[in-house]
Amino acid sequence: MALPVFDDVVAAAKRIEGFAVKTPLLEAPLLNAKLGGRLLLKAEPLQRTGSFKFRGAYNAISQIPADKRKNGVVAFSSGNHAQGVAAAAQMLGMPAWIIMPEDAPTIKIARTKAFGATVVPYDRYTQDREKMGLELQAKYGATLVKPYDDPNIIAGQGTIGLEIAQQCEALGVKPDAVVVCCGGGGLVSGTALALSGALPGVPVYAAEPVGFDDTKRSLEAGTRIKNDPDARSICDALLAPTPGEMTFALNSKLLKGGFAVTDEEVKRAMATLFQEFKLVAEPGGAVAATAVLAGKLPIKGKTIVAVVSGGNVDPATFVDALSLAA
Amino acid sequence: MALPVFDDVVAAAKRIEGFAVKTPLLEAPLLNAKLGGRLLLKAEPLQRTGSFKFRGAYNAISQIPADKRKNGVVAFSSGNHAQGVAAAAQMLGMPAWIIMPEDAPTIKIARTKAFGATVVPYDRYTQDREKMGLELQAKYGATLVKPYDDPNIIAGQGTIGLEIAQQCEALGVKPDAVVVCCGGGGLVSGTALALSGALPGVPVYAAEPVGFDDTKRSLEAGTRIKNDPDARSICDALLAPTPGEMTFALNSKLLKGGFAVTDEEVKRAMATLFQEFKLVAEPGGAVAATAVLAGKLPIKGKTIVAVVSGGNVDPATFVDALSLAA
Repeated sequence: MALPVFDDVVAAAKRIEGFAVKTPLLEAPLLNAKLGGRLLLKAEPLQRTGSFKFRGAYNAISQIPADKRKNGVVAFSSGNHAQGVAAAAQMLGMPAWIIMPEDAPTIKIARTKAFGATVVPYDRYTQDREKMGLELQAKYGATLVKPYDDPNIIAGQGTIGLEIAQQCEALGVKPDAVVVCCGGGGLVSGTALALSGALPGVPVYAAEPVGFDDTKRSLEAGTRIKNDPDARSICDALLAPTPGEMTFALNSKLLKGGFAVTDEEVKRAMATLFQEFKLVAEPGGAVAATAVLAGKLPIKGKTIVAVVSGGNVDPATFVDALSLAA
Repeated sequence: MALPVFDDVVAAAKRIEGFAVKTPLLEAPLLNAKLGGRLLLKAEPLQRTGSFKFRGAYNAISQIPADKRKNGVVAFSSGNHAQGVAAAAQMLGMPAWIIMPEDAPTIKIARTKAFGATVVPYDRYTQDREKMGLELQAKYGATLVKPYDDPNIIAGQGTIGLEIAQQCEALGVKPDAVVVCCGGGGLVSGTALALSGALPGVPVYAAEPVGFDDTKRSLEAGTRIKNDPDARSICDALLAPTPGEMTFALNSKLLKGGFAVTDEEVKRAMATLFQEFKLVAEPGGAVAATAVLAGKLPIKGKTIVAVVSGGNVDPATFVDALSLAA
């Protein structure tokens, strides 16, 4: 298993430059005063396709050799990787088939189609999406673009870590901690890899929904643990059954630990991001900020960077979260 | 009447550097495809205090001489200028009294207080806020910080125009038009002044709510016209009764024209900014984008910059707008 290294993230940053958005690091002075610390949000809802997933997808797909491009790409995704892959493939003139759970948010399915991809629905709880991906791959000769367990995907997501380091330097601050949303672990492992080179010594944490805190529990156990198949969460982007093999190999070396947050805490955090940052976050995109706002990762007297990973949320879900606004 | 000139905007940009946020220019590829044009949003909800008003306030207040600073500042405002003045005064260690309409959004009153200011309520339809401002000014020896009819305020808001020019250059595009939200006219006149020097020849338009389209009608009449005192709109930030003397002197020279949009059109635009840009806009902050999205300013085949001027909106108002999401 060839794990990505720091230089792969640097190369990915060059590859996505001019295609991905350098998202801002947002700050809310009144909230800082209330928290007694400084919370900086890396705002990936403002990324192309509304989530960080475009970074890894473009980094991976742009490296597919010329003679294989016409056969296109296949991906399986709950929605954000779907859009990232669809948009990157469209920009590179390639067809895309995306296997999506039939209960994915309407907006994510609609937008994946709008980026020109063919959506293939499946049942999240009874069908094996990885097997379906391999079948489609064989049928069309297309390249499978994995959602997280791939060196190019991890390196692409890691470009967020490089930007965090650059933006913190521009602000003249060294963060005391960085906390990152975690599903399969591609984003947090890539970000931690980038920070291990660009801001060495800064602890990096994974944040997950309760019931899907497989990375947290796996880090504690020292081995990969599966989630209870009966677990449910509103964080549709973070429902991977177990840590990736490659992502866990990185995370077990690079992460300081993990936090698990409840759906209720996530909704309150979404309302805070609305009020204080004017930012639309989806449930799964808000879990890292939730770890801070719900007090799991103490911020008093500290500067913490939280990655807000996406903003593709149905209006009804957002309205429900706003009912918890202070 | 000494009108501000282009160099005043350049000086303001230096003054606010490091204090105000250089807000991003956001883009939504799927929306562009649907519109058949390129819509770039200058995202001032991401500005310190959640609106552009901090720019002018900091530019004006930071120029108050040392011996007058301890007496503080007085301002009258429906809420965004209030927060801009309160935050700038707090950063400069000065007391602030803010005269606010008693029906201003709760969030705006609460946040003005949170920035350390003393809020003085008044009745928007029966009391004269300008007279109250002068009385408070006399009582405390404080400096009055006008909301728009002041060269330093106009120059400060105009820094948005300089940033638009820089950001368009970085993207390699020259916009076909720039459209700006308009209440008293400080933002649009400052932006047009900046663009007259930084992007000469690009037409600049004012966008206003129906019933409060005094700038549009005044431009057409060639003289300042008042709004009907019985007019109402959800765009609480844009309810000035008539164009400012100074802002109209600039706007009548610099603007190409104006657009009036309905509350219903504004709510639909707020829902689009939520879905496509993951950005929280308040009603008054969305009117310029509304002029494009509702088809008043045709975008097909063109690149248009719309300034989204603020995002300080109560959850209930936002939820109401989201009910119109497509």
